[in-house]
Order: sequence, then C-alpha cells, then structure tokens
Amino acid sequence: MRKTNRIKTPILLVVLVLGISASAPTPAQYTAIPLQSWTEGPVKKAILDFVTRVTRQDGPDFIPLRDRVAVFDNDGTLWPEQPIVQVAFMQAKIKEMAAQDPSLYEKQPYKAALNGDLAYLMQAGAPAMMELLAATEANMSDEQFTASVKTFFKSARHPKLGVPYAQTAYQPMLEVFDYLRANGFQIWICTGGGIDFLRVISWDAYQVPPERVIGSSIQKEFVEKDGKSVLWRKAQIQSINDKNEKPVNISLHIGQRPVFTAGNVRSGGDIAMLEYSQGRAGPSFQLVINHDDAEREFAYREKDTSTLTAAKTHNWNVVSMKNDWKTVFAQHGAAQKKAQ
Amino acid sequence: MRKTNRIKTPILLVVLVLGISASAPTPAQYTAIPLQSWTEGPVKKAILDFVTRVTRQDGPDFIPLRDRVAVFDNDGTLWPEQPIVQVAFMQAKIKEMAAQDPSLYEKQPYKAALNGDLAYLMQAGAPAMMELLAATEANMSDEQFTASVKTFFKSARHPKLGVPYAQTAYQPMLEVFDYLRANGFQIWICTGGGIDFLRVISWDAYQVPPERVIGSSIQKEFVEKDGKSVLWRKAQIQSINDKNEKPVNISLHIGQRPVFTAGNVRSGGDIAMLEYSQGRAGPSFQLVINHDDAEREFAYREKDTSTLTAAKTHNWNVVSMKNDWKTVFAQHGAAQKKAQ
Repeated sequence: MRKTNRIKTPILLVVLVLGISASAPTPAQYTAIPLQSWTEGPVKKAILDFVTRVTRQDGPDFIPLRDRVAVFDNDGTLWPEQPIVQVAFMQAKIKEMAAQDPSLYEKQPYKAALNGDLAYLMQAGAPAMMELLAATEANMSDEQFTASVKTFFKSARHPKLGVPYAQTAYQPMLEVFDYLRANGFQIWICTGGGIDFLRVISWDAYQVPPERVIGSSIQKEFVEKDGKSVLWRKAQIQSINDKNEKPVNISLHIGQRPVFTAGNVRSGGDIAMLEYSQGRAGPSFQLVINHDDAEREFAYREKDTSTLTAAKTHNWNVVSMKNDWKTVFAQHGAAQKKAQ
Repeated sequence: MRKTNRIKTPILLVVLVLGISASAPTPAQYTAIPLQSWTEGPVKKAILDFVTRVTRQDGPDFIPLRDRVAVFDNDGTLWPEQPIVQVAFMQAKIKEMAAQDPSLYEKQPYKAALNGDLAYLMQAGAPAMMELLAATEANMSDEQFTASVKTFFKSARHPKLGVPYAQTAYQPMLEVFDYLRANGFQIWICTGGGIDFLRVISWDAYQVPPERVIGSSIQKEFVEKDGKSVLWRKAQIQSINDKNEKPVNISLHIGQRPVFTAGNVRSGGDIAMLEYSQGRAGPSFQLVINHDDAEREFAYREKDTSTLTAAKTHNWNVVSMKNDWKTVFAQHGAAQKKAQ
C-alpha cells in the first residue's frame, strides 16, 4: 500500500514528460527522477554524481556489478531511534509477562524496564540487560522468537508517529535504496540491534531480505526439543554489532569492503564502518545523518561529537534532516499521523 | 571457457527441438534439458520432481521465491576432498616459508606439514594446528590473506586431475546449480573450510559470490596499520563450521532454514545441516553424495557410517557417484587431464 502511494507521483511525472505508457512501470522509469524527497543541494548532488561516476562503463572509476555493495546502519539512519524499536519490543514482552505475574512490577530489573527507568538500567549494567534479554529473546527456539517478534509488530505503533514501525522508514533513504538498486547495488543493513529481530521486519520496512541483515547476535545451540531439531537461543551474547565490530561482521557476512555506507550521529557507533568502506581500493561514498529536525522527527546531538568530527576529517557527506530532506516520512505515514 | 563448453550442446539441442533462434540463449532454454550428466534413476527423478512440485504456483507445495534457499557443503560435495584444497594451500605456504628458512624442515609442526605427516598432526592436535593456521592465515590483514590465496590458486593444480582447482567442480552438481537457479533458488555454500579461503575461488569455481559462502572463521580486529584501517586476522578460532555449528552459522548468515541441502559421506559433518533443512515448515530436499567411484574420482567410506545411517532413517537421497553420474568432471577438465 505505502509503496504504491510513494511511487505514484514520480511515475506519473515520468509518463507525462517522456510520453510513455503507464501500463508497465519499471524501476528504471521511476528512478529516471531519483531522490525526489531530497532538496537540491550538495548532498543530493554528491550521491547522484558518485553513482553516475562509478556506473559509467568506460569511466576510470567504474565499479563492476559484483562489488556494488551498499551498507546502512538502521536505528537513526533508516528509521527513528526514539524510541529504539527493540527496546519497545522488550518492554511490550515484559508487560505481557507482568500481566501473568504482577510481582514483576516490584522486581528489578523488570520494574525499571516497565517504567522506562533508563537511569537504573544504565547503573545496573550488563547483568541486568542480560536478564532482560534472557527473559525476552533467549531460552526459546529461533521459530518461537520470530513468532513473538511478528506478534509485536502486528499491533505495535510508533508512539509519536502513530503508525506501524514498518511505515516509519525515512522516505529519502528509501529513495536512496531505489536509486542504488536501479544501479545494480546490493542493499545491506548493519544494525547495532539484534539480527534476528530486524530480519522479521526488514522486508516489510525496506524490501531488504533477511540474509542482507547484519546485527548483534546471541549464541545458539542445535538441539532436539520435543522430537524436533531446533536452534535454541542461549542467554549469552555472541557479538555486539557496534563500533569496531561492525567492520568485523560486515567482513563475515559480505566478504568485501562496501562501496557505499551510511550511518548517523548519536553514539559514534558507525565511524568504524564508514572508515572501513573508505579504506577500500577504489572509489567509495560515506553518508552521515544528523538529527536536527525537532519539528518533523527529532533533534539530538552526540556528547563527544565524534561522528561529526570524523566526518569533517574524512570528508564524509553529512545530511541535515531539516535542510536536505523535503519529506521525512512517506505520505501514508503522514496521513495516518494527521488522522489521529 | 569451461562454462561455454558445458552449455553448447544443450542449447543446440533446444534450438533444434523447439525451432527457436539461437541468437538469445537464456537459462530457461538451457535448463529445458536439466541435469544432463545424471543417469536416469531415482535420484535425478527425485530432484526434478521436487523442484517441479515446489515451483508450481497453484500447487499445494508451492514455495515462494524468497524462501528458495539451497545450501551445499563444499569439500566432497562440490569438488574432491582428496586432497583437501585448503590443506594443500597450507602446505604450499609452509614450503614458501621453508625456502626462506630451511630450519622449518626440522621443526615441528612444520616438518609434519611439509611431509604430509597426518599421523603426527592428529596426535599433536589443536596447538599444532593453531600454529600452522597462525603461520599461514593469521597475523595479517584480510587483504594480505586474500592476495596470498589468489597467488596460490593461480599456479596450483589438483595432483590427480592436473587442472586448476577452479576446474575440479563436479559437473553434475554444477548442473544442479543451473537448474535450481533457473527455478529461482539462491545457491549458498556452507563449508567446513575457511570462509575467507573459499570466497577467493567460489565465483570462478561455482559462480557463487563471496557473500553466499558460509564457513569456518577466525577472529578479527579492526585496527590501524601503517595509517590505514584494516581487519587484522588473529590466530584465534571464531567458529568451526562443522556438524552442529553448520545450522548455527546458516541461521546467522541466511536467517531461515534452507529448502534444499546437500552434503557428503565422510565424517558426519553434514548430518545436522541436513536435519535442520528437513525440520523446516513445508517441503524440503536432502542430498547425500557417496564416494564410490575409485576410477573416475575416489572411493572411501565413513568409519561409523553415521551419514548413511541418518540418510536411511530420514529418507534422504543418496547419490552413488559411480551409478548416478554419467560425467564427474567437466569436459575442459577431462581434456586437460588427457593432455598431461
């Protein structure tokens, strides 16, 4: 539904301008006018120039199809990170548990999770987080976890936007996906969040299949339960896909340095991934989203300004959501928001 | 070159039979006569029947495109495992080192590796293997390792077949790849060998891109060396992709149970992966290669017969190389062999 709404206007425009039949719209027709939600400015121009340059078959910077790998952080880069969706999931699960066992309202760390008491959770640290992770994401099979996440996404709504999380993707970034795909790029997501969590929604939100999602993971064991072989999710971290672990996991999943990478300003979590891409032999492109749009999304800064400092040092492209994006969310999301 | 040779005859046949122009051969035309190197028999019939059944749009067993995941073991399933290619690489690297430092000929475990003294290596166990791994695959950047493997594959030849390793793929399995691809399947390799080792050759040997290779891995660290950010390969195992770890890593890389899996009889290493596939909700297919062809390839058995026992219990399809395969290696390989 949403996708149709998004695409309608550009296709119509192309049809009018080129005088072609509307009967068979293709990505190529759509992307004839790429990045429509981006204002004319240096960042939009940089993206268009880069992709044009590296896809020119006889050009000096031509990148063959097999190397056209694009990697995007998720929270804060592709959809909002206020709240972090996986934390909303965890809270919803603990609320369900507390409905069965009200004593959890008085028991830490569940009490803190239920009240959104971040101060307590920060101070309680890793053991508390492991207990919450174990309660909501471990000690069950992969299939049980996936079913639990699916149930969450069916009814959950973004508290500010009022729409399902799958409809909170940034429209300009979806257009970057469309444009890169039309130019032969593979789209990957490299999230600090859980790999199995995001995989449940990555297709609906971004048309990214599960095998193109990289993320934090817990340890699993192949065991027999009730006469069936399952992967059992253990309450032990395998990889926290943040900062320097992002390049490590990109290498594990993709096997080469990405050409195009995008992250965002918040915790410095994407700096290593952006550097890793820039270190490839040959041209590359780095994009950093800066959240400076309190009216349409959120405005927040990074305490140590490490990402913006790195962006300046390494000449990365910084997106001002306020100035570079004409639209933040797709039409459908906006309509739902007004209807509230 | 080899691919062209393989495809020529079927396309010609299709052109003659259907009376269509040869100007634009497509996979669909080629696979109109699939699995040509397979003898008519129960295994070939089972593959054809299965793929036909799950791709029939209005059938009860239809599997949507996004779920069509096929996973293949490598050594002994897609190419010979005598010798194991990565061991040949290790020996070649140690030979290079010994040319610089002849004392290695008298120093264990290098001496054993140089002499192919498996008895010593088995007895010396993990510490010896880690030392050899460190010497040949660790303490260098990803880029340095890849370059080293590329150099090896340029000159290395299979000792019995006399051709480059990229040309030792089993022709019947390449035809399974072609047939599955033409029917919308993703082809993945899940090897007990090193993920970064196989990725160097997976395209040339099988037309499988690096991101579709799953394997054993060592730990890496994102560090700065000589002013450049690199992934540094540490002499520490991260995952040994064998037995029960295969499903764990398939889940990590793909995020769903495969529909089609193939392994081979030797060490029981593929049983868990085959079970994992069979445990999916919906139809699945399991293939087991049995090496019983001393004349054209090799003949060997499994000590505990665990794989064949599991195949019988679970009703998996067992390939007799001797009886089910008309051809083992592609024409180009055979021609080179005779030319020796």
